[in-house]
Amino acid sequence: MAEWTKHSLLDLKSLSVEEIEMILETAKSFKEVSSRDVKKVPALRGKTVVMLFFEPSTRTRTSFELAAKRLSADTINIAASSSALSKGETILDMAKNIEAMNVDAIIVRHSCSGVPLVLADNLSASIINAGDGCREHPTQALLDMFTINEKLGKIKGLNISIVGDILHSRVARSNIWGLTKLGANVTVCGPSTMMPAGIEKLGVKVSYDIDAIIPESDVLMLLRIQKERQDDKRLPSIREYAKIFGVNQERLRKAKKEVLIMHPGPTNRGVELSAEVADGEYSVILNQVTNGVAIRMAVLYLLLGIREPVSA
Amino acid sequence: MAEWTKHSLLDLKSLSVEEIEMILETAKSFKEVSSRDVKKVPALRGKTVVMLFFEPSTRTRTSFELAAKRLSADTINIAASSSALSKGETILDMAKNIEAMNVDAIIVRHSCSGVPLVLADNLSASIINAGDGCREHPTQALLDMFTINEKLGKIKGLNISIVGDILHSRVARSNIWGLTKLGANVTVCGPSTMMPAGIEKLGVKVSYDIDAIIPESDVLMLLRIQKERQDDKRLPSIREYAKIFGVNQERLRKAKKEVLIMHPGPTNRGVELSAEVADGEYSVILNQVTNGVAIRMAVLYLLLGIREPVSA
Amino acid sequence: MAEWTKHSLLDLKSLSVEEIEMILETAKSFKEVSSRDVKKVPALRGKTVVMLFFEPSTRTRTSFELAAKRLSADTINIAASSSALSKGETILDMAKNIEAMNVDAIIVRHSCSGVPLVLADNLSASIINAGDGCREHPTQALLDMFTINEKLGKIKGLNISIVGDILHSRVARSNIWGLTKLGANVTVCGPSTMMPAGIEKLGVKVSYDIDAIIPESDVLMLLRIQKERQDDKRLPSIREYAKIFGVNQERLRKAKKEVLIMHPGPTNRGVELSAEVADGEYSVILNQVTNGVAIRMAVLYLLLGIREPVSA
Repeated sequence: MAEWTKHSLLDLKSLSVEEIEMILETAKSFKEVSSRDVKKVPALRGKTVVMLFFEPSTRTRTSFELAAKRLSADTINIAASSSALSKGETILDMAKNIEAMNVDAIIVRHSCSGVPLVLADNLSASIINAGDGCREHPTQALLDMFTINEKLGKIKGLNISIVGDILHSRVARSNIWGLTKLGANVTVCGPSTMMPAGIEKLGVKVSYDIDAIIPESDVLMLLRIQKERQDDKRLPSIREYAKIFGVNQERLRKAKKEVLIMHPGPTNRGVELSAEVADGEYSVILNQVTNGVAIRMAVLYLLLGIREPVSA
Repeated sequence: MAEWTKHSLLDLKSLSVEEIEMILETAKSFKEVSSRDVKKVPALRGKTVVMLFFEPSTRTRTSFELAAKRLSADTINIAASSSALSKGETILDMAKNIEAMNVDAIIVRHSCSGVPLVLADNLSASIINAGDGCREHPTQALLDMFTINEKLGKIKGLNISIVGDILHSRVARSNIWGLTKLGANVTVCGPSTMMPAGIEKLGVKVSYDIDAIIPESDVLMLLRIQKERQDDKRLPSIREYAKIFGVNQERLRKAKKEVLIMHPGPTNRGVELSAEVADGEYSVILNQVTNGVAIRMAVLYLLLGIREPVSA
Repeated sequence: MAEWTKHSLLDLKSLSVEEIEMILETAKSFKEVSSRDVKKVPALRGKTVVMLFFEPSTRTRTSFELAAKRLSADTINIAASSSALSKGETILDMAKNIEAMNVDAIIVRHSCSGVPLVLADNLSASIINAGDGCREHPTQALLDMFTINEKLGKIKGLNISIVGDILHSRVARSNIWGLTKLGANVTVCGPSTMMPAGIEKLGVKVSYDIDAIIPESDVLMLLRIQKERQDDKRLPSIREYAKIFGVNQERLRKAKKEVLIMHPGPTNRGVELSAEVADGEYSVILNQVTNGVAIRMAVLYLLLGIREPVSA
């Protein structure tokens, strides 16, 4: 395997195909670690990993925290509110203070796009983007790619449809960057009010008709509909969205026999997909969650630059 | 000792006498661990234990967290609000996601009775009930039984009085199941508005007069009066409750010489018991807290099925 | 080195010169630990350290938590609100319950002066004051002294000016006790409404004119201005404070060539000091943060009485 050189993981836009593949490959061995009776390796013993979350999050935070702990790193949770910062302190100030405690990695989530980039430009700790505004959520896309690869044996040449609120979705954006780099044919589908202008320039096809794309999709990646979007008038009603874009058993009858149903969670059962589909035979939603820990272990391991064997 | 076979700890209703005794016995050796200079054994190294609390809790959460850490398990805290779930996600959904991260045990507290049972029926992780609605709080009753046994040398044949809001108390219910199985004579005592209809069917005596039962009680287990109960009209006033049921030095004059005063905490000093009684010679309230860690270590150890010796 | 005998760290008022020097000396070796690739020593393995914070805090809590983890102690966070206590439980009650779980140290922050003393008088666990009301914040002053010593090679004979809201500052009070004991010449400076009556009795000079003291100061220690103070009429306006007491490049022109700019954080950029000064060549603000972890490791190590060598 080539040598890993990046110091931070900010987005998939700036990763090379080789770098993406190196993360996916490294995650394979870490997936095995989490299935052991003793789910723990000493790789990052004595390293300090801080979770700095400016948006509430249970599952992403838990996934990163478990990943760090299974690598034997020390973890610190900081649930920062923007209000704490309104006292005249900048985010950069706060992050520099955290770094000054000899912290090795800061995992950051923030509602503003670009915050992780600013931190990476100004700090020497490794920065991991755990979601920034509507821009990117790279570890989510990596775990999605890992799951597709695991289930279908490849990514290249697959027809992958991302359905929902493309405009506001950092998950969609990271997946578009990653999947197109690995050679998938990506289609984005959703209401026109939730489709960013010029999205085709990223190398994707655009559809407004889910029934038209289901028959040829190898993967249906459904995005969470934020109920707030109804208030800002982008959605006539949740019920109407469910009727036009929601995936149910009826719609899936026209799907390929081995189609994968994916969702970054948490799901709105009855909106993006029916409960039967969420729990059904095509759903790999829980596999995504399992793989998330492996991906995050791989990312931490590669970034923090320990070169001991995983199995040690 | 017999082999432990249960995968989850949901309640004392469904435990056999042998199982209760096995937990109490195992807790003895773990109590010794917490008194060592190095309070730590490697028994659960590499295991992941999640505290999923839908009700705020400091002491029960801390007790479980310390128990897991002293067994060398990795711990994750999730303070879940019901509001997070109102976004269309079910509790089961959330728990399945947590489990998918290869979690070994989920310790759950919820204001609805039965939530731990639903999780145990649907997940393969071990579920530990840390209090569900008004139903059960099994580790509290186990630590109470451990304390009684430690102080009085037996449980069988003792007269144990549980005083307070029996209707809403999961602590009372778990103790009734456990203590009657072990052969104690249990009396419940409190205002008639806080006494569940038909409680005698569980094998207990009912009293509305604390002064009548004090002289023959070996143990007085006082329950916390929730001030909210005054609002729902079950209680004329806190002051009146204190006068009629509150245990003070005066009342204790008629008690047995070796009576134990117990309380699951946090105490309302001046309501269920006077400050003098809480801090007095008969009080074993802090012993209960100490024993709570040992009981929770025993439960985690038995459920997660490691068969190495404790002293390793 | 002499033997350490204190069981708790409550304030600098009651520490001897020798004790202060022993902490500063011990912190030197721990600073080295945090600069290692594996930032961890087994000194406090199997010890339990609880952070009991009644006031919100990110940096102090994180600094203590990292210090404990790098010493291999188990840590528990309890973010206590005064509201939790209004249910009839006293702070002492709560702390006794925590201690009953065989806890070795309780690190406490509370808005009321004296709370750590009450706990130390009534508990056998070691108590560490992480800030009590307007009284003391001993580890902050210790890390300040460590930083001054590290940068200027001594404390004795230095002119150290503390500028800001002296009245409400526990940081100022701890530094006054510590620095005067070690032989520094301390001047306090700020608006007269924020200057405690009789402060000279602590052995400090008082000034109301920052420009008069800058030329002879070896250290300028700037305190955070709480915006709330404007509401209680102690401050005409933040803008006016910044104009009269704020340290900017212009003012610093009259300073000594090796002056140190210190601040306990978080800074109000544009109030106590300009952004240029905060990030400028004289600023040791981030060094203070780094040294804070070393000081807290030293304090935990000395109090919890493990006599193994640090490097083990």
